[in-house]
Amino acid sequence: VASLEDLTNRMRDFTQARDWGRFHDLKSLTLALAGEVGEVAELVQWLPAERATTADDGLRDRLADELADVLLYLVRLADVAGVDLGAAALDKLARNDERFPVTTFRSIAPEAR
Amino acid sequence: VASLEDLTNRMRDFTQARDWGRFHDLKSLTLALAGEVGEVAELVQWLPAERATTADDGLRDRLADELADVLLYLVRLADVAGVDLGAAALDKLARNDERFPVTTFRSIAPEAR
Amino acid sequence: VASLEDLTNRMRDFTQARDWGRFHDLKSLTLALAGEVGEVAELVQWLPAERATTADDGLRDRLADELADVLLYLVRLADVAGVDLGAAALDKLARNDERFPVTTFRSIAPEAR
Amino acid sequence: VASLEDLTNRMRDFTQARDWGRFHDLKSLTLALAGEVGEVAELVQWLPAERATTADDGLRDRLADELADVLLYLVRLADVAGVDLGAAALDKLARNDERFPVTTFRSIAPEAR
Repeated sequence: VASLEDLTNRMRDFTQARDWGRFHDLKSLTLALAGEVGEVAELVQWLPAERATTADDGLRDRLADELADVLLYLVRLADVAGVDLGAAALDKLARNDERFPVTTFRSIAPEAR
Repeated sequence: VASLEDLTNRMRDFTQARDWGRFHDLKSLTLALAGEVGEVAELVQWLPAERATTADDGLRDRLADELADVLLYLVRLADVAGVDLGAAALDKLARNDERFPVTTFRSIAPEAR
Repeated sequence: VASLEDLTNRMRDFTQARDWGRFHDLKSLTLALAGEVGEVAELVQWLPAERATTADDGLRDRLADELADVLLYLVRLADVAGVDLGAAALDKLARNDERFPVTTFRSIAPEAR
Repeated sequence: VASLEDLTNRMRDFTQARDWGRFHDLKSLTLALAGEVGEVAELVQWLPAERATTADDGLRDRLADELADVLLYLVRLADVAGVDLGAAALDKLARNDERFPVTTFRSIAPEAR
């Protein structure tokens, strides 16, 4: 099982072994992240709404590939920015629990806040 | 320390407690992911190139917040798609090691492949 | 009525008057474009599928605002890149007509190519 | 010379001829837009900062192709949303002139507002 720290370290090693650190500034990595999210978008964009609640085997495999790319650039970007991604996510979860109380938001879309 | 499984489970619980599963189809979650990556982009877009290699304290805090949102929607999207995100990332790392041999790609940008 | 040339010229004048040309490189403008598309995504992400075929007055006004931002950064990016955006669009339309013949693609989603 | 109205009408005709209107809801078209912006991002992501101020011939041609796709989905999305894109852009330009007075913002990046 891969932890966020493992993935972060492996991406850092991968980058250093190829001397790619010069390419990995905040703007370039954010563009790479947008590029990979764009590939995810292309996989799902024309799915009929009623078939978008789950992924069949073929779509799941292609999504796995693209979602992995998103995650790898995400941990790399966090590393370069000095962000502890796991801690930031836990912090955000705690704040979301307060921001969207279950009793108020049950069945109401989040933007109705 | 948060694992991807922890975050996945916490997002699933968060969603179920609010009955928000109806909103979390593949297309809607990909749009949410694009929205959060857009917020990351807005944080770094006008940084002068020479200041984009690292983040000062203020930028790091704002990036932590937005990168956390990206991660949370990413694990949620993977969960709905039936994708094991950690396994997919490890698989991708292994393939990238083969695809970009150190001796060939040292100091050469990846798109030069 | 605004033409693409008008908008391009007005964005160029706007940029020069503020000496913002230094910020308008290809990477920064692409990040700005991704940021604005992210704002569009946030406007539509939780729309129920059956309500996403059209926009009511409130959504239309907010979309007008964000789609305008997308267009303005798009014409600015094309200008910096030396691309004639109108000619490129006409060229793409002509190629799409050949790539997706009506008789073959009628009612079949484009990715089924 | 192509006007926004021409492009809008041609995309509408293209869509109707293939009976693709069913695919062109607000969420699907926004995903398509994010996908095309992602392709632009992939073209510029690893450009060294000092080479990102302009595009050489090869990059310009590839950017022309992708920026055209962005524009075509943008006019299609505006059409489905009932947005007059040219009018919205002119309106935004007028508001930007007021929001960023030349004397205040000369040489200062826009996010310093």
